[in-house]
Parts: sequence; structure tokens; C-alpha cells
Amino acid sequence: MTPDQVRRTATGPTAGLAAGYTQANLIAVPADLAYEMLLFAQRNPKPCPVLDVTDTGSPHTVLAPGADLRTALPRYRVWRDGDLVAEPTDVTGYWRADLVALLIGCSFTFETALAAAGIPLRHRDQGVNVPMFVTDRECRPAGRLHGPLVVSLRMIPAGLVDLAVAISARMPAVHGAPVHVGDPTALGIADLAAPDFGDPVRAHDGDVPVFWACGVTPQAVLTASRPPFAITHAPGHMLVTDVRDTEYLTVPL
Amino acid sequence: MTPDQVRRTATGPTAGLAAGYTQANLIAVPADLAYEMLLFAQRNPKPCPVLDVTDTGSPHTVLAPGADLRTALPRYRVWRDGDLVAEPTDVTGYWRADLVALLIGCSFTFETALAAAGIPLRHRDQGVNVPMFVTDRECRPAGRLHGPLVVSLRMIPAGLVDLAVAISARMPAVHGAPVHVGDPTALGIADLAAPDFGDPVRAHDGDVPVFWACGVTPQAVLTASRPPFAITHAPGHMLVTDVRDTEYLTVPL
Repeated sequence: MTPDQVRRTATGPTAGLAAGYTQANLIAVPADLAYEMLLFAQRNPKPCPVLDVTDTGSPHTVLAPGADLRTALPRYRVWRDGDLVAEPTDVTGYWRADLVALLIGCSFTFETALAAAGIPLRHRDQGVNVPMFVTDRECRPAGRLHGPLVVSLRMIPAGLVDLAVAISARMPAVHGAPVHVGDPTALGIADLAAPDFGDPVRAHDGDVPVFWACGVTPQAVLTASRPPFAITHAPGHMLVTDVRDTEYLTVPL
Repeated sequence: MTPDQVRRTATGPTAGLAAGYTQANLIAVPADLAYEMLLFAQRNPKPCPVLDVTDTGSPHTVLAPGADLRTALPRYRVWRDGDLVAEPTDVTGYWRADLVALLIGCSFTFETALAAAGIPLRHRDQGVNVPMFVTDRECRPAGRLHGPLVVSLRMIPAGLVDLAVAISARMPAVHGAPVHVGDPTALGIADLAAPDFGDPVRAHDGDVPVFWACGVTPQAVLTASRPPFAITHAPGHMLVTDVRDTEYLTVPL
């Protein structure tokens, strides 16, 4: 499928769709919070690498010029005062003229390179959403915005972990190298079978848990900081952009 | 010299000083322009990779916790309505309670790795400031801010250009890979002997011009956009931070 076909037809998580194209997280906030949101992202570049910021009120991004951000994602979340109030598939009715949208790099982007290198991706093989966890690591705050780091988990055969690190490290704009390998408790994660977002995956013998910083972090920030209004993607339900993943590859594979 | 010693004693360009530590460009603007400045940086990450943003009014950065940004740089520039009005060595008297300072990565940071790989650095060998040029490439604007890309020039032996590209590409936070190799006219640069900032360098036989995006770009933006007030570093006279350059190395050398 092309990115445009995904944007028009996908209804579930977007991992593995339109392989070779960059995927992005969405966080849209009223303009009076945009500086703090952008500052939060700058201060937390591992979970929040910003790929684009829209002009105030505009539902259009240079990452996908033909797309309407209010309909291009398979599913959204609408937040009021830090509470999740709706999970629609179209946010045209919720959009406001004062919204500024940040598009944040997504680790699904480097999955194409991981797969090409022979690294199995359990969530895709098992047909589920990638598991994501709220950690006990606080992000660096910015003004009114604060909250914990969220990570995505991939169970990777021990002998391939170094390759997964080397490949993802080359793409810092889509979260780069893992933040932790091996011990979930080091991140305050008690149970890998109970993710905070997405679905659990079945590990294979010899798999090691590898955690990457995740663009769902701004949603944990909404829960912690409780700003009046925001729209995000639903975890795993990303904007598939028209930008080739190689655009964010700093060093050739 | 340690970073602190450089901050206390340096009077000229900082290339080659406190080798192994990250250097940064400075652009401080009033808070009402801070969002547009940060947005400009996000939209132009090659010239403007943001390493830190200070809290409003604070002259302190996490990059060098003991330093005072008003005195830690060897030389500054003070701008009013787009005009350069002073080049002091201390901006304590110019500082304002509404200033927000952006610290932007500097290519001097990867010079340590270039030198370690045997790549000659003509400006340092000749005891001059690195040459910098305003190009004919417009940056992507943000609100009231617009202006051309500025680049730094290093004359590099042809056989070492690939190595210089590979090394710098690993450090996107300090400008990453070059924006152009070979032909100055491709960037609208007419005369390599007449840089817009810094000093000319003498090339050796077989040298090729290699151009990196430069953190002086915000100063060209001040000239083009003419905001009421700003403070910057003087080109080549950087903040030497306490952060090891390896912190910004995405992939090992």
C-alpha cells in the first residue's frame, strides 16, 4: 500500500504498513500551550523528536502535503482536562482554529530496516499492536508540562540485539537507539504482560526485552499535567507520511 | 584547558579549545519571539539543531550548569531592529528579564573527531576563525522569522572528504553531514576568499571545499527579519559546554 492508501483505508495499528515510509505521532494543543509543548519536545528529544509543527489552525503538514490531519490517521484520542473523552476515527468535529499540531517521529519507521536485517518483530508476526509502558523516569518538564517517559517494547533474540541497536541508532529522528536493554524493573515496569498501551506479545525462548523511547509520551504528559484540551493519535495508530524513512537515516546501513 | 577555563579566559574564536567538549551557538530573543525562534529552529534542523532552551530570564543552561551565559562566551553581538549595534565581551548590561536563550549545536564540536582521524583543519592550522558564508538558500520561515542558510567552510583534501562526511554525519546535533561538497556557486557563493563571517583560509593543492550548515544562520535571520532585540554570540566565539562531544554521537566512530 502507498502512504495515501493507508491514510484512506487503514482502521487499526499502522506497524508494517507502507513499508519504507516514515510514520509519526500526533499531539495537537491550543496555541497558548504550543510553546511549552515544543519546548517539552526539545527538552526530551529521545521520546519527542519533532518532525514538523503545523501553522496555527492548519490541519496540513509538509510531511504529507495531500493529507488532512483530521482524517488521515486510523484513530484519534480527544483529551479534556487530562481525561481521555473520545477515541474517534475522525476529529473534524473536534478541530479548533487555535490548534497547533506536532508530528513526532515513530519507531515503526525503523522497523522496516530491522525487518530487512532479519530481526523478527513479534507484534507484527502476532498481529497485535506494539506494547508500550509508562516508566518511572520523569521527563524534563517545560512550563506547565511534565510527566513520565513512555517506552515501546520489542522482544528481540539476544544475538540480534546489537544489530537492532546499531540500526535504530542511525535514525535519531524516530527515537534512535534504545533507552534500555534487558531489565524491565530498571524502568519501573513490573509486568511485561500488562502494557499500559497496545497489546502484550508472546516472547520466544532467548528473546531479550528492548525498550525504545516512545511518542506516546506526550499522552502521559496530558494525564499528568491536565491541560484543558488536546487531540492525539491513538497509540499505534500513526500518521503515515510521504517521507521516505531514508530521509532520517544519518549514517548508511 | 577545561571548559570552565575556556569560559573564564578565552578572548578569541573557540575552535580547538577544550577538545572533546561540545560547543554551542547562542541566540537570545524576548519571550514574545521565543516560540517563533524555536519553531524556526525545528523547521531548519540542519543549521539550527537546538541543544537547550533556557527558562525565561535565566542566564543558565543545563549544558554548563556553573556558567553565566552573559559572561561565558568570548564575544557577543547585540542586535536592535536587525542592526548589529555592539560586540561586547560581556552582555550583563544588555540582558533582560524576558530573554529566552537557545543554544544551538556548533560544528567545532565534530572537529575533534575530524582531527583525530587525520583530517587537517586549515582555519586552526592558520590561526584564523573558520570562514562562513551566507548562501542563496532560503530557510523554511516561521512566523515573523525568515532568512538565508549560512554555512561554514572547511577545505579538505579530496581523499579525506568521504571520511569527513561519515564522521560528521554521526553527529546531527552539531549540524551532521555537509550540505554541499565541491562547488561554491551551487550555494550562491561567489568568492571563497571573501567570507561573510570569520576569515579566509589558504587552501592546499588538492583541497575540496566542504560546506556545513552553520549556527550563525539565526544572525542572518535577524538581518533579514529585523526583530526589535536579540543577543547572539559573535561568529566563531562559542559557548564551550560541559557536555562531552560523544553525548551527541549517534553511531560509534
